[in-house]
Amino acid sequence: MSQPVPKGFRLAGVHCGIKSNAAKEDLTLIVTDADSVAAGVYTQNLVVAASVVQNRAKTPCHDFRVVVVNSGNANACTGERGDSDCREMTRLAAEAVGATENQALVMSTGIIGHFLPMEKIKSGIAAATAKIGTDADAFDSAVRGITTTDKFLKTASRSVEIAGQTVQVTAMAKGAGMIGPNMATMLCVVMTDAKLTAPAAQELLTHAAELSFNCISVEGHTSTSDTALLLASGGAGVTPTSEADRAAFQQTLDEVCVELAKLIPSDGEGATHLITLDVTGCATRADARQIAKTVTESPLVKTAITGNDPNWGRIVSAAGYAGVAFDPAKVTLTINNTLIYKAGMPVAYDEKVVSDSMRDSFEVHLLLAFGEGDASIRFWASDLTVEYVNFNSDYST
Amino acid sequence: MSQPVPKGFRLAGVHCGIKSNAAKEDLTLIVTDADSVAAGVYTQNLVVAASVVQNRAKTPCHDFRVVVVNSGNANACTGERGDSDCREMTRLAAEAVGATENQALVMSTGIIGHFLPMEKIKSGIAAATAKIGTDADAFDSAVRGITTTDKFLKTASRSVEIAGQTVQVTAMAKGAGMIGPNMATMLCVVMTDAKLTAPAAQELLTHAAELSFNCISVEGHTSTSDTALLLASGGAGVTPTSEADRAAFQQTLDEVCVELAKLIPSDGEGATHLITLDVTGCATRADARQIAKTVTESPLVKTAITGNDPNWGRIVSAAGYAGVAFDPAKVTLTINNTLIYKAGMPVAYDEKVVSDSMRDSFEVHLLLAFGEGDASIRFWASDLTVEYVNFNSDYST
Repeated sequence: MSQPVPKGFRLAGVHCGIKSNAAKEDLTLIVTDADSVAAGVYTQNLVVAASVVQNRAKTPCHDFRVVVVNSGNANACTGERGDSDCREMTRLAAEAVGATENQALVMSTGIIGHFLPMEKIKSGIAAATAKIGTDADAFDSAVRGITTTDKFLKTASRSVEIAGQTVQVTAMAKGAGMIGPNMATMLCVVMTDAKLTAPAAQELLTHAAELSFNCISVEGHTSTSDTALLLASGGAGVTPTSEADRAAFQQTLDEVCVELAKLIPSDGEGATHLITLDVTGCATRADARQIAKTVTESPLVKTAITGNDPNWGRIVSAAGYAGVAFDPAKVTLTINNTLIYKAGMPVAYDEKVVSDSMRDSFEVHLLLAFGEGDASIRFWASDLTVEYVNFNSDYST
Repeated sequence: MSQPVPKGFRLAGVHCGIKSNAAKEDLTLIVTDADSVAAGVYTQNLVVAASVVQNRAKTPCHDFRVVVVNSGNANACTGERGDSDCREMTRLAAEAVGATENQALVMSTGIIGHFLPMEKIKSGIAAATAKIGTDADAFDSAVRGITTTDKFLKTASRSVEIAGQTVQVTAMAKGAGMIGPNMATMLCVVMTDAKLTAPAAQELLTHAAELSFNCISVEGHTSTSDTALLLASGGAGVTPTSEADRAAFQQTLDEVCVELAKLIPSDGEGATHLITLDVTGCATRADARQIAKTVTESPLVKTAITGNDPNWGRIVSAAGYAGVAFDPAKVTLTINNTLIYKAGMPVAYDEKVVSDSMRDSFEVHLLLAFGEGDASIRFWASDLTVEYVNFNSDYST
């Protein structure tokens, strides 16, 4: 689970008392040794956490030094006091590493509508600053420090050769609930020691997010705090400048982000299946996205998957209300590679074989093909279980 | 539960073997004594049942004589054979009452993707024709004949004075799952003995549906078969022509449709609460609708209500991703008339009192007020429970 830390980064997570469980880290600090590039993509929710407002104004940038993350409290819907608490948290993190406030970013995740416990945050930043490092303990504690209801830690890493040099890309993410596919719907930090300009980093991250974090869903509820950052320390001393190097780096970043993104609905609250949905044959990618989002958000589709039921009528009818024009007589569906519905008509197939194939695997694959064009998209989503409902209907205010 | 049958109508429901349970009616016939007016509103799903295609082509009309309804099989996604089965079902119903095929409408509700058992349909139409009447038994059996997973029967009735005469409006509906607020999302038949022109009936029904059936949600999954019909026999011999009479009749129809519409999420699969959501202060009614739809479809909002949890962060953040522009600093929320969130800031309130008020009542009222204008909407939705998930994840193909 631990991953190599790219050159130029140090990090740590500590428990400072935001979460009641003293065994759980709730504050993470990620520091660069020198001015670095940072790019961000953020929630498109209109109701946003104070941290999102501040980070948006600061990225992309080329003099980044530190990001402080707390879990257990989103500092969202907290008005002016929330804004000033967020600024103070940023100032404390900057001060701790000898940077200016403009060089510091901040992420907060957890319950909405509560003020940050600033004394705990202050002591947490001090403790994390004393602990930052590059070993497995440092990395793992930092990953734990950004989690909330996650059941497992979410990390991914790749290395890629750029101009004869090895560049490392290592990322961490959190998220298991309030996950809807509309911009980066969780917290994620991607670290690389490649040397990037700020606009290049932004472009690379936006491309990767579009393929990964914007294609996942737990229950479709877009959060107030979603943030994905790409931090580039330049520690490897190499910049992907040629077309081929740019493409190689983009592909590496895409792979890391897709791997991380898939882990989120896999750990969706109560999930018993990861649904992978390919929508193909659409006129535009936006059409394919709208259909994929509608199908994967349908509670009837999700519960059919939970029940290992190839209930294709729910899938096809969900596509029908996505608001995208298509010819129903050209729709084809396969479930786990078995043809179920072809050109608008049911196909004879062995229900038990398909149901068994669903029961036997955590991953269920749906392919929904249209006859409107060449655009496609791949989406990943959780199913909907009794555990999700129990978890989220427990009194939690 | 039985309601007065307006003049000019006879009806009955029978069991013909579509449902396995012999005690449950599965075919209903509603017949008018003479040529009548019929108007319809239908699902906006692109994937539709054969019945919807045929009815759309026939309404509004002024020579309606019979509608045949079967439950237990939606005859949707069944291709050309489904279309020809649907035409044959229409022809049989018309023949049974001495009408032409053009004078007959048809509705089918139940599982998607199975062919209609035509021999059973044929014998059912014959049996229902022999049984049609106007008494309580006739009415109640007809209502039972259109139900599927409904736990209770859904009817509503009003009378209204038009030009000194009494006009009756009586309606029945079915629906408990696959209910999403986008056109009439269930089956409904409204019978009246008022004398209406076909265009007037269509206008009246469209107006009523916009306030009622288009404002409800169980899980937001728009079905393939949604149909609401307004049948006007003219048996009372009076036409609402003056402005005042038109308004009185419209209001009566609206009340009947709203009363019926509310019963559907009240009987939503597994529902333990009916959520009534008022969205006010929007720039347009379309904006208010989009926010109401997004909030009532959020599984996190629904499960909070299930848990009697005034978890306002989920409600406010759901509004934020509805895709409607608003100023978050002008948002105010009350739950069961307690102010929870005012002008973008949390308000001190007694959580236990509000939670208890939710626990003590089947109905939970949310008021989400914006500062963008004067448009508003009222929506009704089910909560999301373990029973919903269990029910819909049972193997059912």
